[in-house]
Amino acid sequence: MFEILSLKNGIENVSGFFCDGVNCGLRPNSEQGDLAFIRSEKISNIAAVYTTNRFAAAPIQHALRYGKVFEGNFILMNAKNANAMTGKKGIEDIEEILDALPKELELVNPVMSSTGVIGYRLPKEKIFAGIEKLDFNAKNSDAAATSIMTTDQFKKELCFQVTLEGGSSFTIAAIAKGAGMINPAMATMLCFITTDAAVPKEEMQELLQGATDSSFNKISVDGDTSTNDTVYLMANGASGVYDKEAFKVALDRITFELAMMILKDGEGSNKVVAFEVVGAKDDNEAKIAAVNLSNSLLVKTALFGEDPNWGRIASTIGASGIECSEETLKIYYDNLLIYSSQKPQLDKKTEERAYKIMKQESFKIRCELGMGEGSYTAYGCDLSYEYVKINAEYRT
Amino acid sequence: MFEILSLKNGIENVSGFFCDGVNCGLRPNSEQGDLAFIRSEKISNIAAVYTTNRFAAAPIQHALRYGKVFEGNFILMNAKNANAMTGKKGIEDIEEILDALPKELELVNPVMSSTGVIGYRLPKEKIFAGIEKLDFNAKNSDAAATSIMTTDQFKKELCFQVTLEGGSSFTIAAIAKGAGMINPAMATMLCFITTDAAVPKEEMQELLQGATDSSFNKISVDGDTSTNDTVYLMANGASGVYDKEAFKVALDRITFELAMMILKDGEGSNKVVAFEVVGAKDDNEAKIAAVNLSNSLLVKTALFGEDPNWGRIASTIGASGIECSEETLKIYYDNLLIYSSQKPQLDKKTEERAYKIMKQESFKIRCELGMGEGSYTAYGCDLSYEYVKINAEYRT
Repeated sequence: MFEILSLKNGIENVSGFFCDGVNCGLRPNSEQGDLAFIRSEKISNIAAVYTTNRFAAAPIQHALRYGKVFEGNFILMNAKNANAMTGKKGIEDIEEILDALPKELELVNPVMSSTGVIGYRLPKEKIFAGIEKLDFNAKNSDAAATSIMTTDQFKKELCFQVTLEGGSSFTIAAIAKGAGMINPAMATMLCFITTDAAVPKEEMQELLQGATDSSFNKISVDGDTSTNDTVYLMANGASGVYDKEAFKVALDRITFELAMMILKDGEGSNKVVAFEVVGAKDDNEAKIAAVNLSNSLLVKTALFGEDPNWGRIASTIGASGIECSEETLKIYYDNLLIYSSQKPQLDKKTEERAYKIMKQESFKIRCELGMGEGSYTAYGCDLSYEYVKINAEYRT
Repeated sequence: MFEILSLKNGIENVSGFFCDGVNCGLRPNSEQGDLAFIRSEKISNIAAVYTTNRFAAAPIQHALRYGKVFEGNFILMNAKNANAMTGKKGIEDIEEILDALPKELELVNPVMSSTGVIGYRLPKEKIFAGIEKLDFNAKNSDAAATSIMTTDQFKKELCFQVTLEGGSSFTIAAIAKGAGMINPAMATMLCFITTDAAVPKEEMQELLQGATDSSFNKISVDGDTSTNDTVYLMANGASGVYDKEAFKVALDRITFELAMMILKDGEGSNKVVAFEVVGAKDDNEAKIAAVNLSNSLLVKTALFGEDPNWGRIASTIGASGIECSEETLKIYYDNLLIYSSQKPQLDKKTEERAYKIMKQESFKIRCELGMGEGSYTAYGCDLSYEYVKINAEYRT
């Protein structure tokens, strides 16, 4: 038995963690930060899930020298420049930057995490100057969360306090960024999770991978997989408290809620849609169909048009290559049956209900395949003019 | 040795073929046709390539009873209704419609081909009335080509006359439609090819599949695979002339040119881009990378924005899962080197040239991977506001 309480703000609630963010000129003519850090007083267990992109950015190549689970106490983050496709020079830049951090911080295995444009070297002088401005004893989660934003419309920050039977408690907090380039085939965007729970090192990776698989790996904004996506979990054990079951529930919940925030903030997105596929031959086939639905341009534009064009749902399932049959296929929008017995189930009245369902900020499209027991839910969003505008203009 | 001459107009040039198109009310309040046919005086060899979508539409399910190569003399086409996801009733509708055609046509294995909205039964009464209006002895290729259009902005019709050494000649002509829902994983859109060449039945399928693979299967508008895509080749032998090599060249050329017309007319598309991948581990890996590039939303929006954002090209290759390395990757826009040796090769002057290249109606993005000898070229287009608009509003 345990209780999970949502706290205001983010990382400042977690014992032994410090964070801050400042503007060092990467984001020109702006008050908004572009350089941030998270620091733990104690050496923490750190687990990471990185992008599956073969051109993993320099910060990931650099961090991989420590393995996927390591001990450390510092992450430096920057926006506006991904430090990707920059080769060995990109890694050397990181080493130089991390070397410039104050010696009194006694950094152990410090890492860096970057997001922004691909293919340009980091402007080191700006970052050196930014380091001078950072307060390494601050507890300014808001500044850190806003500093890592790119095309994000709102900051993503959450904190839970978990109280176990008997009254002992630990805290878990996370900040994240993401908006475009979100795809379920990988670790997805940037997310930094801190906790004062005493998570054993050997359980870190399994817990983080599980949480990532059931959250960030289930969402898709545009089907593109970035070079920089990273999820870090830092556990410093400062609370002295740990319960695996409670921690797993809290971690899964914080990552899932952040994933939904990212999807809601998908570039130009107006609604979040759950694509629930059940009755597939197996879970893998259900996943293929659900992910294809969440990525289909024709499905995404129909969502934007708020048109219950279920034919595109059917066509996308058929095109996905999985086992399916017209005879057993049923399609629901929320709980409204739209297609079954090889014909649309819409009359005037239900068609009106379908339109109403599609006007919601979030709803579910459920496809029953009747082929077996496999199921999977993927989460997607609509594709609007705004997405095209944001991405046509991004670099310039 | 042979000579290929482009002729004006389309199917009317081919001996022994008749075609026409009329409006029967499927396309409301319009002069434009919506019901068309192609008829051969002689029994023709017919080969077909159909969609890989598991929910192949009723016309395809109906035609498959004859196998993929068969003898016949008649194709009936309609727009605005795909007759897909309509089950056995959809096939019975086709049988009834084909039975209503005039007995004096002496039809052998007639087939139907439909395009339009998924999930609604064909309005048979309208089609019966339309059949009354069709002139089965007309040679009106223009009417047939315009009748099968959906969101197409222009009709697609081509004709070549092929003259062999010695002066004997045959003719090949085709009409096609397509605009959205174009994806390389299948036979793609509707295309009807007629020829008076005496193509042996046993060579029909191989020739058509080869031509389809190097044309329609290389283009992508939106990565979606329709339920109805079909390519038919009808050879009636009326010329008595055949030369395999010459016929293959003419067939490959007519399908490739039609594929480029379809891409140029891609929904909301402003430019056609060739994604040439060379130096992959093998041809299959080159194909994966090229197809991923042609389907990436971030690449497509950068094309629309005319921004030489090569980072998205690199990221997409890395995300495709094929073997690649930053160290050996080179990216060219047309012949302009943009990225190599792990850094961008753009200065002020070349950046200006890159912008100029991107403003063209068509250009090439060439990626050299340095992993092996594999190569493949896929063809794509940009993604504009217009695509979103067309597809958000399509059904309503």
